[in-house]
Amino acid sequence: MGLRTIDYKDNKVVIIDQTRLPARLAYLRIKKIGQLWQAIRQLKVRGAPALGAAAALGVYLGVKDSKARDFIQFNKELNKAIAHISLSRPTARNLFFALERVREVALKNREKPIFWIKKLILSECKLIMEEDRRACRAIARYGVKLIRDNDAILTICNAGILATIDYGTALGLIYRAKEEGRRFDVFACETRPLLQGSRLTMWELKRKRIDATLICDNTAARLMREGRVSKIITGADRIAANGDTANKIGTFNLAVAACYHRIPFYVVAPVSTFDLKIASGKEIPIEQRCASEITGLFFRRPVLSEEVSVYNPAFDVTPHELITAIVTDKGIIKPPYSENICRRIRQT
Amino acid sequence: MGLRTIDYKDNKVVIIDQTRLPARLAYLRIKKIGQLWQAIRQLKVRGAPALGAAAALGVYLGVKDSKARDFIQFNKELNKAIAHISLSRPTARNLFFALERVREVALKNREKPIFWIKKLILSECKLIMEEDRRACRAIARYGVKLIRDNDAILTICNAGILATIDYGTALGLIYRAKEEGRRFDVFACETRPLLQGSRLTMWELKRKRIDATLICDNTAARLMREGRVSKIITGADRIAANGDTANKIGTFNLAVAACYHRIPFYVVAPVSTFDLKIASGKEIPIEQRCASEITGLFFRRPVLSEEVSVYNPAFDVTPHELITAIVTDKGIIKPPYSENICRRIRQT
Repeated sequence: MGLRTIDYKDNKVVIIDQTRLPARLAYLRIKKIGQLWQAIRQLKVRGAPALGAAAALGVYLGVKDSKARDFIQFNKELNKAIAHISLSRPTARNLFFALERVREVALKNREKPIFWIKKLILSECKLIMEEDRRACRAIARYGVKLIRDNDAILTICNAGILATIDYGTALGLIYRAKEEGRRFDVFACETRPLLQGSRLTMWELKRKRIDATLICDNTAARLMREGRVSKIITGADRIAANGDTANKIGTFNLAVAACYHRIPFYVVAPVSTFDLKIASGKEIPIEQRCASEITGLFFRRPVLSEEVSVYNPAFDVTPHELITAIVTDKGIIKPPYSENICRRIRQT
Repeated sequence: MGLRTIDYKDNKVVIIDQTRLPARLAYLRIKKIGQLWQAIRQLKVRGAPALGAAAALGVYLGVKDSKARDFIQFNKELNKAIAHISLSRPTARNLFFALERVREVALKNREKPIFWIKKLILSECKLIMEEDRRACRAIARYGVKLIRDNDAILTICNAGILATIDYGTALGLIYRAKEEGRRFDVFACETRPLLQGSRLTMWELKRKRIDATLICDNTAARLMREGRVSKIITGADRIAANGDTANKIGTFNLAVAACYHRIPFYVVAPVSTFDLKIASGKEIPIEQRCASEITGLFFRRPVLSEEVSVYNPAFDVTPHELITAIVTDKGIIKPPYSENICRRIRQT
């Protein structure tokens, strides 16, 4: 692999600073929960599965130097850390999934000494990472059969190495298919406003020696119309019990165009992305981000110097009826989703 | 109005350099056909109707200092100028429409002295501009009734003052509705890669004191899903006899999403945008532009430093079945387009 999106080493959380890619592959060593919160907020680390690990490790940074003498005090500090991280970004389910795991481990072991609970929390963080690694591999194993020779695969945002602990969800399928010798084309949507497609996915694919073609997001429908897309494969940030899927803004756009052109549309995500407590996508909180992402951040000079009204949701929700299948680490789930998701994925 | 996108003054073609907007409102004074060719190619002047005027004036610049002594010689020079300009950009019908007008005027007056033919060509250029001005007004008069109080109108690219000789096609409706006191919201797609939406449309609307909200192109479907768009209004670069419409890349994307959400989708264009010689959109030549528009031009540093494969068509074609109506200076045309376009628009 070589790349490790997030890790814990020498008492620090080590992440790739994704805002500097593709110009520079730089690592950040993070000691404090506040720094990690900032790193999440500023998308230095992003991608739903990676956010799970980052969130858990952030909480660990927040309590590892706790001076609490009893569990009540420690638990207060833990809850504060969890509450803090949970306000970093609202949409990715994996983040909350990981926070709940950390909370549970502490509660379950409340009788143990504090130093011991801390160790168990760190172990849980490592387990979350290890599970994500295994989930990526299982997803790729199940999903690779969807990719055939001569496919032309369109993807959006980045659901690869940089979004997970291993080689990704949507891109994991592509990497695995490449390993198995299949030949196919890849198209990547640039993914405005923050260009995760052109900056991260194109960079990753190049490292893996996979030829890919970059398009503007608004070119996807034309590409489909030209018969140049045989399937669409995306990641997910949160999947409701009925299969409605929140993912990077623009995903729903692709799903509608895919439906119009009768092109299969696949969502790829680990179990930790499912939120079975919510019935539909309507309940998924959608993060709103600042105007300057659109008007300025990546531009030589701000596009608009004056104050301008901007609507910048970071995610959209693709209704389940537009999704051909969901590839998970527990197998491929097909409609009817309300039944099949529940059956396949038993979360507590 | 104040603004004049293109004009002829003191033996020069005067255009607003649209690549410098919104940072600076700068005018270019152009004396030579070669400079005008460059200005068209580099999108310093753009927008289908404005391109018609620019093309005709470009040809005039190319022949006005001709030393030809007879019509045969003059006509050779004229044809060379027309051929040159016709290679500047391939998609907008108005450009070719204007070139044909100039050619006809010369041929029809071949018996007249050369200096006289030159004068007639200049008059024809001015007539093309005057007709576009009148077309804009007629379009707005017919189209304004489509805009109701509390509408939320989504548009893409720029089909306003900067795309025409007057106050625009799609945006003309909006300006006229505002003059008539109607209240509505406007959303503008930023329009990657060259950001005509965020740079030009947002700037124009602000000058006209119309509140508008900027979105990334990939956010359109979500906005529709939220019930925040009541109609979509766009310009056009070329309309085939069956109503298939070429317009800025991303327009087809919007039309598909509009169809899915049952939102009316209107195309607005003068008669000079129609190309009745072609049966369908399949025959419309689509300009392919360079990769650096996506990877570099507007960015602080190139997004991708390495060579990257890019697909960058400047236009797409919206099939007629997705278009609710086409607003022209001869009235509003509704389906079935094959019949109604032909009946309404009699081109030679």
